[in-house]
Amino acid sequence: MMNAEVWKDLIIKNNSKIVFVIMDGLGGLPMPGGDKTELETARTPNLDRYAKEGIGGLLDPIYPGFTPGSGPAHLALFGYEPVEFNIGRGVLSALGVDFELTGRDVAARLNFCTIDKEGKVTDRRAGRIPTEKNEQLCEKIRREVKLSAGVEYFLQTESEHRAVLVLRGDGLGGDINDTDPQETGKKPFDPKGEDDTSQKTARYVSEFLTQVKEVLKKDHPANFILARGFAKHEEFPSMEQRYGLRSVAIAQYPMYRGLARLVGMTVLPVPKDFEEMWKQLKDNFDQYDFFFIHFKKTDSYGEDGNFENKVKVIESVDEWSARLRELNPEVLVVTGDHSTPALLKSHSWHPVPALLWSSRGYARRDAVSKFGESECLRGNLGRMPMKNILLIAMANAERFKKFGA
Amino acid sequence: MMNAEVWKDLIIKNNSKIVFVIMDGLGGLPMPGGDKTELETARTPNLDRYAKEGIGGLLDPIYPGFTPGSGPAHLALFGYEPVEFNIGRGVLSALGVDFELTGRDVAARLNFCTIDKEGKVTDRRAGRIPTEKNEQLCEKIRREVKLSAGVEYFLQTESEHRAVLVLRGDGLGGDINDTDPQETGKKPFDPKGEDDTSQKTARYVSEFLTQVKEVLKKDHPANFILARGFAKHEEFPSMEQRYGLRSVAIAQYPMYRGLARLVGMTVLPVPKDFEEMWKQLKDNFDQYDFFFIHFKKTDSYGEDGNFENKVKVIESVDEWSARLRELNPEVLVVTGDHSTPALLKSHSWHPVPALLWSSRGYARRDAVSKFGESECLRGNLGRMPMKNILLIAMANAERFKKFGA
Repeated sequence: MMNAEVWKDLIIKNNSKIVFVIMDGLGGLPMPGGDKTELETARTPNLDRYAKEGIGGLLDPIYPGFTPGSGPAHLALFGYEPVEFNIGRGVLSALGVDFELTGRDVAARLNFCTIDKEGKVTDRRAGRIPTEKNEQLCEKIRREVKLSAGVEYFLQTESEHRAVLVLRGDGLGGDINDTDPQETGKKPFDPKGEDDTSQKTARYVSEFLTQVKEVLKKDHPANFILARGFAKHEEFPSMEQRYGLRSVAIAQYPMYRGLARLVGMTVLPVPKDFEEMWKQLKDNFDQYDFFFIHFKKTDSYGEDGNFENKVKVIESVDEWSARLRELNPEVLVVTGDHSTPALLKSHSWHPVPALLWSSRGYARRDAVSKFGESECLRGNLGRMPMKNILLIAMANAERFKKFGA
Repeated sequence: MMNAEVWKDLIIKNNSKIVFVIMDGLGGLPMPGGDKTELETARTPNLDRYAKEGIGGLLDPIYPGFTPGSGPAHLALFGYEPVEFNIGRGVLSALGVDFELTGRDVAARLNFCTIDKEGKVTDRRAGRIPTEKNEQLCEKIRREVKLSAGVEYFLQTESEHRAVLVLRGDGLGGDINDTDPQETGKKPFDPKGEDDTSQKTARYVSEFLTQVKEVLKKDHPANFILARGFAKHEEFPSMEQRYGLRSVAIAQYPMYRGLARLVGMTVLPVPKDFEEMWKQLKDNFDQYDFFFIHFKKTDSYGEDGNFENKVKVIESVDEWSARLRELNPEVLVVTGDHSTPALLKSHSWHPVPALLWSSRGYARRDAVSKFGESECLRGNLGRMPMKNILLIAMANAERFKKFGA
């Protein structure tokens, strides 16, 4: 295994630009009776041209056969070994509501739930209350629940019955069991910490839960909360520390903005549309080295099982990407974070098609002439772990000295 | 990760012969406007026939995206994990002047430099003195500098302002800082050891430097020396210990002869031309199991940016390799240690084309019918770490038992 210490000594800083265009859940499958994936069905003259001039390949986000969540898949894109740099569920949820975590924070996912008179859970999702109701209840809790000295808490609505809790203080551990019993007819578990610092956190959580139970007692069906996925926010080494890359993210959705922030990227204001994403890229092109540009809808339509709309989004991104030639980055990578075939209506384990284009002509060309899963199989990038793609992009941008003499 | 202990129990010794023909820096890129690499441009009927009868592939010397130096790249060819078996700079330089290191040696690279009256460096390369001057000064130092008991030193000219220092003694550590301040206007640093054994070495180095300053004081511009890359020579387990292969090297250039010696190969006398390389191979074919045959000029012309001459050298090696059929080795591997595209005028990160031919017909044939980067992409060897190729060669020579029952 190659670890960060090995390449740290090899880094060269120069003025080259590396652009990553990420279509979330890009990889796909043909629908029954068909023989082309979403990407192969889409008309993508611009991406095809980049693929023809550059090289193709297939990336395994985690490991062959593994279906990744968005968190680890993006870490792999950013060159972080996704199993080693594990992100706790609570932390991911906090990133997903655009919460700015600090190194003193422990985060957990909350569900509003229904309990009966004996305190047993009768509905783990409180009848899926509407998001507005969730917001009102969070507001009420924030107003009435006061924790004892030494800790601050933040409570934020996610959607429907889901919310995020963050505890902030010194010496708080995150190794705490879920209070969610995972089935109805049981009482929620008490929070317990596995070690001293986590026991400290658990005491604050107990205090929080006791008060919440009192505050919500008349708010049936949302008369209590369940917590799970407690996780301490570990600060990751930044892209700049690891690679010497001043990095910036252009992304519309909170989760991906949060993931970029997690690795120390500057995150530009939420762009309202593709046009504004282009403007942000152009206007910031001189100030950064690495550009993470995230397009979400390919994944959303994949999750919906909507093959045709996923195709259309790919075609829009294709059109968008034509203009990248104006900026002439040293290296352009176009890929996804994982596959989300409309056939499966979910993330999947299939490797993700990728293209790498070098304006300097340093990518050793292959026979790939169209950007698609089958063609990429014959590409010069080969099939490799996703975490390698950033290193190869840096090599093509001449950002590494040689290893040994 | 596969380590030596796993295969050690599986080794079979037999009379099979494994020949590695290594063209240094073989991998390439097309020049602007072209679409063929150096190897693809070369007329190579003999290598093409081996490729057609055997299998092709692409090898990553260190890791995708990493540009290797000659040292780690050759270790990978010899099956050693190149990051784990790290060779210090000083040791590599000593190998490069054909110095025979022992396990009691610490080596460093020296530069003759210019210092002013205050002892500050004014030219880190002493005006790049000619090699003859360097030799005279080394001779003078050897004559006049005498170290105290417990250590021997060896001083050898490399070229221009560069030389190599080796200290030999018991219990000498190699963890010593560079004395080279890396910029002019500063005094050289004093050598300091990081641990007890290195402190011992550092004291001898100080003694050496003090005397050298006195000896060279009238030799402006080369009136002092700077040292860097101190490294203890760690003796590596030999090819025979690791693989049960009696191994021999046929190579013209000192660095590669040194690298072969580092892994315990017998190194035959410097052959004056291709014809003598052939004779050495033929005459020694019965006495050894593994043959490392190194051709240097592919790399040299790559470094010069001379595409045409690199093509010509490949064509000469192709012609040379036709005769290998007379010897009928069980396994022939033809590849490089890394890529040196004339386009880049330097080593590069691109994977290296490789062919493996088995006279027994045990390589599972593929569609590769010409030896070149694009064809090798479709080969049965796939794309893999370079350190695997020796194991696969041994397998084809039936030198491994099965693993498990």
